[in-house]
Amino acid sequence: MRYRDAGVDVGRAETIKEEIGRAVRGTWGADVHPLPGGFAGVIGWPGGSGTSLLAATVDGVGTKLHLALEAGRVDDATADLVYHCANDLLCHGARPVAMLDYVAQSRLSPAVVQAVVRGLARACSEVGAALLGGETAEMPDTYLPEVVDVAGCMIGAVSADRLLGQGARPGDRLLGLASFGLHTNGFSLARRVRAASGLGLGDPLPGGAGESLGDALLAPHRSYGRTLLPQLERGRVHALAHITGGGIEGNLVRVLEDGARARIRGSSWSRPALFRWLITAGGIPEEDARQAFNLGVGMIVACAPEAVESLAADLNAAGERVWPIGEVVAGSRGVEWY
Amino acid sequence: MRYRDAGVDVGRAETIKEEIGRAVRGTWGADVHPLPGGFAGVIGWPGGSGTSLLAATVDGVGTKLHLALEAGRVDDATADLVYHCANDLLCHGARPVAMLDYVAQSRLSPAVVQAVVRGLARACSEVGAALLGGETAEMPDTYLPEVVDVAGCMIGAVSADRLLGQGARPGDRLLGLASFGLHTNGFSLARRVRAASGLGLGDPLPGGAGESLGDALLAPHRSYGRTLLPQLERGRVHALAHITGGGIEGNLVRVLEDGARARIRGSSWSRPALFRWLITAGGIPEEDARQAFNLGVGMIVACAPEAVESLAADLNAAGERVWPIGEVVAGSRGVEWY
Repeated sequence: MRYRDAGVDVGRAETIKEEIGRAVRGTWGADVHPLPGGFAGVIGWPGGSGTSLLAATVDGVGTKLHLALEAGRVDDATADLVYHCANDLLCHGARPVAMLDYVAQSRLSPAVVQAVVRGLARACSEVGAALLGGETAEMPDTYLPEVVDVAGCMIGAVSADRLLGQGARPGDRLLGLASFGLHTNGFSLARRVRAASGLGLGDPLPGGAGESLGDALLAPHRSYGRTLLPQLERGRVHALAHITGGGIEGNLVRVLEDGARARIRGSSWSRPALFRWLITAGGIPEEDARQAFNLGVGMIVACAPEAVESLAADLNAAGERVWPIGEVVAGSRGVEWY
Repeated sequence: MRYRDAGVDVGRAETIKEEIGRAVRGTWGADVHPLPGGFAGVIGWPGGSGTSLLAATVDGVGTKLHLALEAGRVDDATADLVYHCANDLLCHGARPVAMLDYVAQSRLSPAVVQAVVRGLARACSEVGAALLGGETAEMPDTYLPEVVDVAGCMIGAVSADRLLGQGARPGDRLLGLASFGLHTNGFSLARRVRAASGLGLGDPLPGGAGESLGDALLAPHRSYGRTLLPQLERGRVHALAHITGGGIEGNLVRVLEDGARARIRGSSWSRPALFRWLITAGGIPEEDARQAFNLGVGMIVACAPEAVESLAADLNAAGERVWPIGEVVAGSRGVEWY
């Protein structure tokens, strides 16, 4: 996802993107599984049986950290980083094995670092990853005062016969799994809307059911592994798209087979109050909202039409809120709303 | 290495360090190999034969990036991050498998990101790691303008019978392997000395052999895997200490057995001109210089006394500059200079 939203001259960015891609691919041996648009990188484990694959992904918490600092909930934001990474691995069928973190500030605040690690550790235990390493950096010439950046790398394992990728094919049905809120994307925009609104984190979310704006904005990133991994084991899932930056369109397109086109029925689920408020208060055009936010759908599952009912029922029973939100048809690669 | 040089109240930092350690260890299952003072984390590979271990480490380039930006050599600095991580894995006997990076700026500069990836890719190819993933982040509320931070996570593999850790034992000899310069540590101090000196990067290094100050400061981080891995295979090495932040003392102590004490003969190698100039021009007390800099020794090898001569000869023949710099004796855990 390099260069997404980088706001650079598109022609030049494309050239550089190509050069970066070439440089990166130049380091790949035959053991790397190229997954175009992948949510993680996948490589054969050396000395493994040939069916044992390592998946790894790296991400930052992003600007959700600013709100978390303001609310004194840094641990929740770093837990979200773990959930985010675990969901990325899940899109390739991988289970979390280990996590490593990088924490940097202008001047290290012991209380902040402690909260960072507390949140990471809590979430790692939940998803089954060992927090295997970490680095703290103090760089007054790089970071603005009183803020923090946290990045994390998660490593997972998947057997070759369970590897998922661009497996959504014509005929597939799409199930949307409810998100808890923004998850970890769209915060630059959300923070601008909130700043312009003049609302405090303790104020009630306009149009909400009484929850505070802070609770709505900082709601955790839902981790889908607990409910989805058993379904992956049963081989019922063709593809998974984790809805992060780029929204439904930007992420669903990453798991479509060549010659497959996704159709999303926008009215098939109700947008949570937080998204309705952000769009209205911010005067955000529909197109931009779809790019920036998950709009209430945190994960999309593609499966065969004959599996969709029982899969939806099983996920429901396991605690997911599930909507049939569309289907995959033959056509030019892309995602259309109707 | 959390909290090293953090400049926080020591008593409080110790308490927090303990709490952080407890939180981290709470995520560890029986598959994690606890390596006190480890340069990397090590965990059994799931589904592996039980002898296949994964080692992983995370690090940042640190403030060397500022000098690299000034000199237009960002790619060299990010290559150094790869070498640094590979050396950390090497201290546990592991070979590089994959690398992932995190690049963040206030506003992403395509040219900078391109240089970052170019350097990472070049060095990954050299050490045999696939550049498996990366994330770029643009955060104007977190980063100062015109700078960049780069962190990386490297994953490696080692078989259980080749795992190294705190294996330096009484009777062992210590070989010092020459560094190329500062490597990636001590740059905050080095940059202060250089700023106070008024010298430009193009000026000759005072006391040097004609090389520029910029070339001396930005000399690459030497990667020791090519020469040391064959020796590890032969089982001739008891322990390896990568000399990074904390210097010889701070890192050598990490690989001592309980009841082992290292003695370093400070006159056994000649300090390169760069270190002599930094210490003199900066008026740096010897004690501080030993903590901040590698002083010309980038890696220390502990081996049995009967192996030391042939090991030194083999490493020399392979291209390392090697000095016998001390020995390990029975005593209280620590490092003393004489």
